[in-house]
Amino acid sequence: MITILATAELEKSLSELPGWTPVRSGKAIEKTFEFGDFSEAFGFMTRTALAAEKADHHPEWSNVYNRVTVTLSTHEAGGVTARDLDLAAVVERFASA
Amino acid sequence: MITILATAELEKSLSELPGWTPVRSGKAIEKTFEFGDFSEAFGFMTRTALAAEKADHHPEWSNVYNRVTVTLSTHEAGGVTARDLDLAAVVERFASA
Repeated sequence: MITILATAELEKSLSELPGWTPVRSGKAIEKTFEFGDFSEAFGFMTRTALAAEKADHHPEWSNVYNRVTVTLSTHEAGGVTARDLDLAAVVERFASA
Repeated sequence: MITILATAELEKSLSELPGWTPVRSGKAIEKTFEFGDFSEAFGFMTRTALAAEKADHHPEWSNVYNRVTVTLSTHEAGGVTARDLDLAAVVERFASA
């Protein structure tokens, strides 16, 4: 069973993930990315989808044209875990590629 | 300039699109689709993305694992137009494939 991060741990981790903020009373983290157009936004989503499926850990996300909001939480743990931070790091990489 | 559908027209069209409901005071239509898993859901999103890009008319949508909520509106017209109904019909086809 994966355990949720303690508050101090989460704060420290988020300081290394610029733009990610706690939401839902700290039970999830979220960031909105802006791309040049829909094609770029959906390209990012596609890469993230492949990584998420491989890791068997999926984002909650929404897309409006060139914007994608990604929300990460580990439902079975009831909060933010190392799996979310790992996926956030991957998402960052794809967003800046 | 594409014009928004009159209320009667919209109601008639929605009667032919089961599950689609007006939202945002009738300025958009929305439906949530449920798939077997994330892979199926994202496959549906990918097909829809390609069709949307081709038509240069894009959905607002969100995805949580096997669920996808699709919201359609024509921003430049300020409401629901024939372009939204066309995309809704395409979305229906992909969702049932």
